[in-house]
Amino acid sequence: MRIMGIDPGIAIVGFGFIDKLGSKLTPVQYGCITTEAHTDPGLRLKQVYDSAVQLLETYKPDAVAIEQLFFNRNVTTAFTVGQARGVLILAAVQRGIPVAEYTPMQVKQAIVGYGKAEKKQVQEMVRMFLKLAAIPKPDDVADALAVAVCHAHSAVLLSKLNGEALR
Amino acid sequence: MRIMGIDPGIAIVGFGFIDKLGSKLTPVQYGCITTEAHTDPGLRLKQVYDSAVQLLETYKPDAVAIEQLFFNRNVTTAFTVGQARGVLILAAVQRGIPVAEYTPMQVKQAIVGYGKAEKKQVQEMVRMFLKLAAIPKPDDVADALAVAVCHAHSAVLLSKLNGEALR
Repeated sequence: MRIMGIDPGIAIVGFGFIDKLGSKLTPVQYGCITTEAHTDPGLRLKQVYDSAVQLLETYKPDAVAIEQLFFNRNVTTAFTVGQARGVLILAAVQRGIPVAEYTPMQVKQAIVGYGKAEKKQVQEMVRMFLKLAAIPKPDDVADALAVAVCHAHSAVLLSKLNGEALR
Repeated sequence: MRIMGIDPGIAIVGFGFIDKLGSKLTPVQYGCITTEAHTDPGLRLKQVYDSAVQLLETYKPDAVAIEQLFFNRNVTTAFTVGQARGVLILAAVQRGIPVAEYTPMQVKQAIVGYGKAEKKQVQEMVRMFLKLAAIPKPDDVADALAVAVCHAHSAVLLSKLNGEALR
């Protein structure tokens, strides 16, 4: 199963693709989509959408996991990030790829086992899970990989729960 | 010049197409796109996008004017409305149609000449400008027509200003 993790935004969108085989996680590709500040806002949305489509067509994930940022943000930021999330989710749904949403607390809980874990702790655990030499930069990329790993762990948990339910 | 006005949302998107010939405004079509509450949020975004594409392809506006709602809304609502605005703006930008954004205060200023006018006053002025027998229902449709009329008035003002600058 291939998972694409996304940390949404308009200036920078972090993304990370990982493959999950049993409990083994392998990084496939990660990086970020960026747009220029002095560009028309509508064009920036189109750039984010076009880049997302290109990534989805190239790496063909089975699932998309996207961060849900409700906290520590003002309404104007929420609008702007919301617009970017809208076109990112659309790109996935148009291709029939299921989209899961996780709050930062759910991501921390799934990776460190503690919903209020430090950002640095989460990044270090993600680095270990994916056997990376260093924590990917910028934070947006590390965050995108974290939400992908969170989805992988949730998927394992869900399949275990379903397995138990069947017994 | 044909203008499409949009009042964005996820449960209901108001839209209104008007034609502007000189200072004369004529309503072309208006109504709303609706999505069901218990549907997957990603699918609702796709429904809003698909309906917007269909309207843009059918009525081929020269400009899109969309309401910008920064006020009296909480962060969660801002996220949801922001996501819907994102896919609506994307649909226009993909077709090379310029998108203008107006705050509710700008809409009131352009239509009633007073930024803090009552909603009812704005609706009544829009009804008169467009020679409609009644104020369109629901409010989302009336608001969409209002932002289209606002853009028409702003376009008149801009062309006058440019005309004066040329003398």
